[in-house]
Amino acid sequence: MTSTTAIDLTADVVSLTQALCDIPSVSGEEKEIADAVELALRALPHLEVLRDGDAIVARTSLGRPSRVILAGHLDTVPIAANLPTRLEDGVVHGRGTVDMKAGDAVFLKLAAALTAPKYDVTYVFYDHEEVAARLNGLGRLVREHPEWLTGDFAILGEPSNAIVEGGCQGTMRIKITVAGVAAHPARSWMGSNAIHSAGAVLDVLRAYEPRQPVVDGLQYHEGLNAVKIEGGIAGNVIPDECTIYINHRYAPDRDPAAAEAHLRELFAGHEIEVVDSAPGARPGLDHPAAREFVELVGRPPTAKLGWTDVSRFSSLGVPAVNFGPGDPLLAHKDDERCPAADIESAMHILTRWLS
Amino acid sequence: MTSTTAIDLTADVVSLTQALCDIPSVSGEEKEIADAVELALRALPHLEVLRDGDAIVARTSLGRPSRVILAGHLDTVPIAANLPTRLEDGVVHGRGTVDMKAGDAVFLKLAAALTAPKYDVTYVFYDHEEVAARLNGLGRLVREHPEWLTGDFAILGEPSNAIVEGGCQGTMRIKITVAGVAAHPARSWMGSNAIHSAGAVLDVLRAYEPRQPVVDGLQYHEGLNAVKIEGGIAGNVIPDECTIYINHRYAPDRDPAAAEAHLRELFAGHEIEVVDSAPGARPGLDHPAAREFVELVGRPPTAKLGWTDVSRFSSLGVPAVNFGPGDPLLAHKDDERCPAADIESAMHILTRWLS
Repeated sequence: MTSTTAIDLTADVVSLTQALCDIPSVSGEEKEIADAVELALRALPHLEVLRDGDAIVARTSLGRPSRVILAGHLDTVPIAANLPTRLEDGVVHGRGTVDMKAGDAVFLKLAAALTAPKYDVTYVFYDHEEVAARLNGLGRLVREHPEWLTGDFAILGEPSNAIVEGGCQGTMRIKITVAGVAAHPARSWMGSNAIHSAGAVLDVLRAYEPRQPVVDGLQYHEGLNAVKIEGGIAGNVIPDECTIYINHRYAPDRDPAAAEAHLRELFAGHEIEVVDSAPGARPGLDHPAAREFVELVGRPPTAKLGWTDVSRFSSLGVPAVNFGPGDPLLAHKDDERCPAADIESAMHILTRWLS
Repeated sequence: MTSTTAIDLTADVVSLTQALCDIPSVSGEEKEIADAVELALRALPHLEVLRDGDAIVARTSLGRPSRVILAGHLDTVPIAANLPTRLEDGVVHGRGTVDMKAGDAVFLKLAAALTAPKYDVTYVFYDHEEVAARLNGLGRLVREHPEWLTGDFAILGEPSNAIVEGGCQGTMRIKITVAGVAAHPARSWMGSNAIHSAGAVLDVLRAYEPRQPVVDGLQYHEGLNAVKIEGGIAGNVIPDECTIYINHRYAPDRDPAAAEAHLRELFAGHEIEVVDSAPGARPGLDHPAAREFVELVGRPPTAKLGWTDVSRFSSLGVPAVNFGPGDPLLAHKDDERCPAADIESAMHILTRWLS
């Protein structure tokens, strides 16, 4: 016989944050917390609850014209003697307080409190965010249960100092292989130096002027960078091959196909292979629900330049932003900590938005 | 009791070539052949014989105004079921026939036959030529017994199709380290891309016009080539370092200091380290003895572009050329072979030169 850890969704949001942190939930060990979340949500008659592995989805079905999604991951990076949590001078200390049990606590409190929200709401709590992308629980839901994730706008509760960080840039890595002809360096004119020829690729990179387009009101900043170069066989051979790996970060007004076409045009004449690719995500701040949310936050949203899980929503056509309590610079740190006021403020903003 | 293998210096030069080849003498195993050479030379009253390890030096001291040096290595690369040698249709087949027992046989025959040569002659037979440079027996003599190697002109009996290949080019390898500042590729403008900056080094290499100077009547051809490039830490980091290894081949009118100064001027502003360096060697064809020798050979000498042991003589101030029977393209091959006529021709030319 096993017993499920109980969490109390009627407790205040700071206590609930602490309770969630105090359940061991390092990536791969999310069963206990997922069971607790499922048990608590199943007690709420206004929600339909679904489960896949250690990911829980709960949703209202009130027939509202718009549906919003609130999503947070349940796992943390390994603890560093920083559990159980402690509340000191209005700050909650411990692993997970920032990344991202405070966000989860806010969403769970909303799930319990809002029996008749203004928009239909889908709450998503998922596993394996802090490890290899192929294990990511949100990615698994996107692949296997995309119908659980339909909606008009999504908020990922990652720490953002309670500012809206909108969308995310796409990322693509290509490999350019420059060929040469091997020869002895004493007679180098018998060959063709692949490293020298790779200079033409570096010329393109050095001359590149990245776009800084405005998408849905947010200004992005693209980038094109060599991240690795290797060439040369031995000290006494003119190299016959040089490879350059290039990372392209592109604003969410382009999809991967457009980004690839851009790179192929830029490096026309070179042998190009796409090594990996992850699409960006539009912030979707032109949607009325999103606009209303941004107004309630009261501080101007900024563009998210790095790639985040919001792009998984984008692949389903759902625009998304990051919004959550806590300073992201404290995530994964030994002294991870979150002001209680931040958690309460996020709770307040979201409650007003959805009521 | 050990017995020394005997070689007969009165045999014809082709038979002597075969006898030398048939004594096992892969690099590191030269004792038997060195003993045989020493024994044979010590039987010649007109020569003084010296030994260091498995290197033998024998010399006349007739008070001639000029001294020439004839040098050959005694070791071979490993055999490939191509011993003992066989003579078929005027061609000697087997390991060492080209590289370079035929040259050794010619020099040994001359040592025995020329009791009163026109110039004083120093004969050098040495070990460990086919392995790491630090083991090279000629290099050891240069370091430990430079007085054994004084002279006005030296001939290295390496296979050269019995054409004079004069001097050799110097070689220098430098490492240029280009620094950058690491950053996340999503915010690459916070850093500085070391691979992109390395493009400036490649610019110099691509624009470089190598000199083709004439030195002592022979035309050399320099070169400047990247032989290795590496940069980049990971797919998601703007690289903070890129290193480029560059090989410079330079004509023997420059010494290593001049070559280094040239590179430091060329890559001014970059962090440069000299990784290795070996000086070139002037052909010395302006010396009367050398000019006479070239005339006897009857075919125009060519510049040696690769680095060879002749440069070890150059470090002692002795100009040197390569001249020996056999096609160098057959050296180290399983079907290594040398026409008897080549050996006899080399023997004939050198005999006429020194008589």
